[in-house]
Amino acid sequence: MEDRALLAPGAARSLFREGLVTPTSGWSAGWTQANLLALPRDRAYDFLLFAQRNPRPCPVLDVTEPGEVTASIFDGDLRTDLPAYRVYENGEQVAEVSDVVAYWREDLVCFLIGCSFTFETALLEAGVPVRHLETGTNVPMYRTNRDCRPAGALSGPMVVSMRPVPAHLVATAVRVTSRYPAVHGAPVHIGDPGALGVSDLDRPDFGEPVEVRAGEIPVFWACGVTPQAAVMRSRPPFAIGHAPGHMAITDIRDTAHLVP
Amino acid sequence: MEDRALLAPGAARSLFREGLVTPTSGWSAGWTQANLLALPRDRAYDFLLFAQRNPRPCPVLDVTEPGEVTASIFDGDLRTDLPAYRVYENGEQVAEVSDVVAYWREDLVCFLIGCSFTFETALLEAGVPVRHLETGTNVPMYRTNRDCRPAGALSGPMVVSMRPVPAHLVATAVRVTSRYPAVHGAPVHIGDPGALGVSDLDRPDFGEPVEVRAGEIPVFWACGVTPQAAVMRSRPPFAIGHAPGHMAITDIRDTAHLVP
Repeated sequence: MEDRALLAPGAARSLFREGLVTPTSGWSAGWTQANLLALPRDRAYDFLLFAQRNPRPCPVLDVTEPGEVTASIFDGDLRTDLPAYRVYENGEQVAEVSDVVAYWREDLVCFLIGCSFTFETALLEAGVPVRHLETGTNVPMYRTNRDCRPAGALSGPMVVSMRPVPAHLVATAVRVTSRYPAVHGAPVHIGDPGALGVSDLDRPDFGEPVEVRAGEIPVFWACGVTPQAAVMRSRPPFAIGHAPGHMAITDIRDTAHLVP
Repeated sequence: MEDRALLAPGAARSLFREGLVTPTSGWSAGWTQANLLALPRDRAYDFLLFAQRNPRPCPVLDVTEPGEVTASIFDGDLRTDLPAYRVYENGEQVAEVSDVVAYWREDLVCFLIGCSFTFETALLEAGVPVRHLETGTNVPMYRTNRDCRPAGALSGPMVVSMRPVPAHLVATAVRVTSRYPAVHGAPVHIGDPGALGVSDLDRPDFGEPVEVRAGEIPVFWACGVTPQAAVMRSRPPFAIGHAPGHMAITDIRDTAHLVP
């Protein structure tokens, strides 16, 4: 597993298809990671509009045709090649599984949404440490008190991921991630978790907590779990998402998203 | 009319609402201009997906609820406050009119799409001349031989706008416009019109021709008339667009679209 950063996307997906369950932060460095949301076709417009209205948490990278299990940026099987999935009925999680073959429906449209794991390679190269990579744990994610702009039947709070950054490197982290708007871009909030409605950093809503050391500032990026938070609040009859932190590793380079 | 560049968006819209018909290049400098496409709700998903798959020609700035005549970035009446409109039935243009009140339907969803007029202020400030502003004519636009990625029932060619740029300023034009991806961003093609399938620059498909002088290179940007070219090819039962070059002047600053 020491080579996880060097694995090609197809090789990583094979391991997940064979049953490996692990957060994907640090895997396949240089390749774009993506959040998954699959919804029935009759809910697809609401979600695509929700994403258009909330581009920071929901940057859409690709959309499949109904029933398709591959995508133009994902040359694998979306039902099996992520490490773990969550299945929702009427907004309630009814299963967390390592494949969704048994739950698949021919009317499902898959949305692949940019993930901030993508820019972690660039953060490391710029000298910004990434704590959850050091500890080998999942990134901490929090529901905020900021509501997304609703669209049709979909509404919900913005979810954020958090990385502690030494104060003298916060500006560097902003500068580096600003260049990747398709994978959430610049932070949405720096310091002051309470203003986001996050009362206890040690109790994330998704993922695992990390230590914030003296001299470090908690920096928050919009997170692609936001669509699942909207599913939980808005209760569509059926939906599938990735398990938070357990992403789709795509065949598109992270540099494809760089802006000048 | 000398003050057209200084007019606030609301003042410009008032003139158009009262019946003035004119291309809007050079109007309300510093404010974002937008293309309009209105489609019945049952065609809206196909178009939003078409835009997601073709972000260079179709950067979506805003989407209305069905029947709404204002938008979050457009504090006017979308039926009357553009200088001119085109109405399509089954892909055929059936009218060009200065308002579409008589054609309005309660199931129409309006898409506002970024327009390259928005970055012309930045080009001028960078010392790049804009010929059609000098001549006071509409920008020349061309259908290309490049097909967009289809979505559902929608397919069609990419349309481009063309500005002749002195060879030593082409790089500047690229650099400046790259920073505005939401209003088409960097050129899609520089020089060699034939490779785009454009056989005669003097005969644009939309707008008016401009002179390309010795030492100037034709530079092509993706154009928000592309959705109307898709309507013409794909023949949805009903659609409304702006008349090419006769844009929606919005209430959002052009600097809101700047990337780092």
